[in-house]
Amino acid sequence: MKEFELIKEYFSFSQSHSDTVIEGVGDDCAVLAVPDNRQLVTSVDTLVDGVHFFSDIDPADIAYKSLAVNVSDLAAMGAKPLGFTLAISLPKADTKWLEIFSRGLKQASEAFDIPLIGGDTTQGPLTITVNVLGTVKTDKALLRKAAQQDDDIWVTGYLGDAAAALKLHDKAQTQALSESEGYLWERLLRPTPPIRFAKKLAKLAHAAIDISDGLSADLGHILEQSHCSAKIKVSSLPLSEQLIDCVGLEMARDYALNGGDDYELCFTAKSSMRNKILNLAEDFKVNVHRIGTIETGDKGNLQLVLDGKPYQPKRQGWQHFSN
Amino acid sequence: MKEFELIKEYFSFSQSHSDTVIEGVGDDCAVLAVPDNRQLVTSVDTLVDGVHFFSDIDPADIAYKSLAVNVSDLAAMGAKPLGFTLAISLPKADTKWLEIFSRGLKQASEAFDIPLIGGDTTQGPLTITVNVLGTVKTDKALLRKAAQQDDDIWVTGYLGDAAAALKLHDKAQTQALSESEGYLWERLLRPTPPIRFAKKLAKLAHAAIDISDGLSADLGHILEQSHCSAKIKVSSLPLSEQLIDCVGLEMARDYALNGGDDYELCFTAKSSMRNKILNLAEDFKVNVHRIGTIETGDKGNLQLVLDGKPYQPKRQGWQHFSN
Repeated sequence: MKEFELIKEYFSFSQSHSDTVIEGVGDDCAVLAVPDNRQLVTSVDTLVDGVHFFSDIDPADIAYKSLAVNVSDLAAMGAKPLGFTLAISLPKADTKWLEIFSRGLKQASEAFDIPLIGGDTTQGPLTITVNVLGTVKTDKALLRKAAQQDDDIWVTGYLGDAAAALKLHDKAQTQALSESEGYLWERLLRPTPPIRFAKKLAKLAHAAIDISDGLSADLGHILEQSHCSAKIKVSSLPLSEQLIDCVGLEMARDYALNGGDDYELCFTAKSSMRNKILNLAEDFKVNVHRIGTIETGDKGNLQLVLDGKPYQPKRQGWQHFSN
Repeated sequence: MKEFELIKEYFSFSQSHSDTVIEGVGDDCAVLAVPDNRQLVTSVDTLVDGVHFFSDIDPADIAYKSLAVNVSDLAAMGAKPLGFTLAISLPKADTKWLEIFSRGLKQASEAFDIPLIGGDTTQGPLTITVNVLGTVKTDKALLRKAAQQDDDIWVTGYLGDAAAALKLHDKAQTQALSESEGYLWERLLRPTPPIRFAKKLAKLAHAAIDISDGLSADLGHILEQSHCSAKIKVSSLPLSEQLIDCVGLEMARDYALNGGDDYELCFTAKSSMRNKILNLAEDFKVNVHRIGTIETGDKGNLQLVLDGKPYQPKRQGWQHFSN
């Protein structure tokens, strides 16, 4: 099957989408309307076979996650989704694989309300690159550098689930998972970045980042770029009962602090915003938890406290090329 | 070396660029200003090691071409460059390779006046995905579907050079190339999409496409989407003297029609625009040639004529996954 037919067949499901997509797939570029008084935000993430996902994962899950991890970056800016492009390299034009992949992509596209506006299909080792576009009100993006002294530190959802699920891969291939394990596995396969909540959060919060490399590492970027420090109450970390059920409380905290792959938000806001944030979270059925405070002091210093004493986790945040 | 350090070290050269880049590399998303009364255009292209470039090519040339082929898509819309993201998968963090690669990327970024605004570095088989962003005046993009009956068909530059150069790879590695061969080889490595010319062309032309898969195939997309046919005078195809020197006139025409990798523009315009187009080309030192006419008749029918008779080239346009 030829490239153009592939694109037509599997990646044209957003053709009739919103009135912001003037021209979608099928020309040299897509053409999009950007409303006045809004800025454009954009981010790109690549998922590589065997590095970012297991080779035997359902292609629908690979597709879903490829888009979700990028939408998570839009959420971290408080942005409204505008569209995304997909660049996919495939060893061969496997129509069965593509059909399942495109089904998962369409599910994610609809779940996050972001249309597919363009793409490129090439022959090569399986590699998926998604570039997302969104808009924010002019100068209202949630930036990493915007945390302020005495801000509350919040996170959405529960942390550590996805990182713990990495250990379940072999079991998931050969035997039935327990109910708790099944929940963790789903959290790894299908992240749920709180994109609608985040869009409204932009006017309540100061700084935000999405948690992809682990809370400690990602909060660290906020601290570094905002030239401040932070204190986290380890007992306030949101842990799912399924995670505690599977790995115990201490390991659960470790995964929450340094696991990664959560695709939840970490954000900071004035303490006077607490009620508004809780109400917003309720409106969008998002769990939010206040876990600590922004402090002055050494640039980037992250203090973990449990029962009034310093807490030392075992693992460090995930880094590519760190070996 | 860790991912964040890699990005900082090699891909932060556009930090202080234009006033349209509000936030560049370093947050969850880049933030860009889009002027009022302009639409956004975007396109993505992937280059895979061993498929789109020879593995032993200088990394600076790989980088240059990765950006150039994407800028070519902006040119085909008549767009002004806004910025680009780079997603690169590398087998290992080879700092020497990255240093040379980033040098070539910076050269292209400056040559085409388009800043690097974000990226992702991952471990995997060498794959380079560039996503370009540009802007056009609202509803003034040059679309494939906009060709009109009796339009002139024009192309920029000379066609077929890059396709012919593919045959020179082995020779280029082991011996000196002739002057003509060296010219062709450079045309393959460093495409020169006429981006500044194209931006001004938007108000003179109807339809446009960039020539990446060969003139016949790419003009074919205009014909298909504009529901028209075309007649091309084969004697009017712009052929470099170096190409004719290397492969002879007949093969040169073949390469020009069906070679691909030119990254020049094919566009259509009213015959009353001829002088304005020639003047614009002179202003921007771009070669333009009028090669045929848009006609009514069978959808997508491309008639090649030489000395008043139908002309039959030997090769067909390049397609991925065509085997």
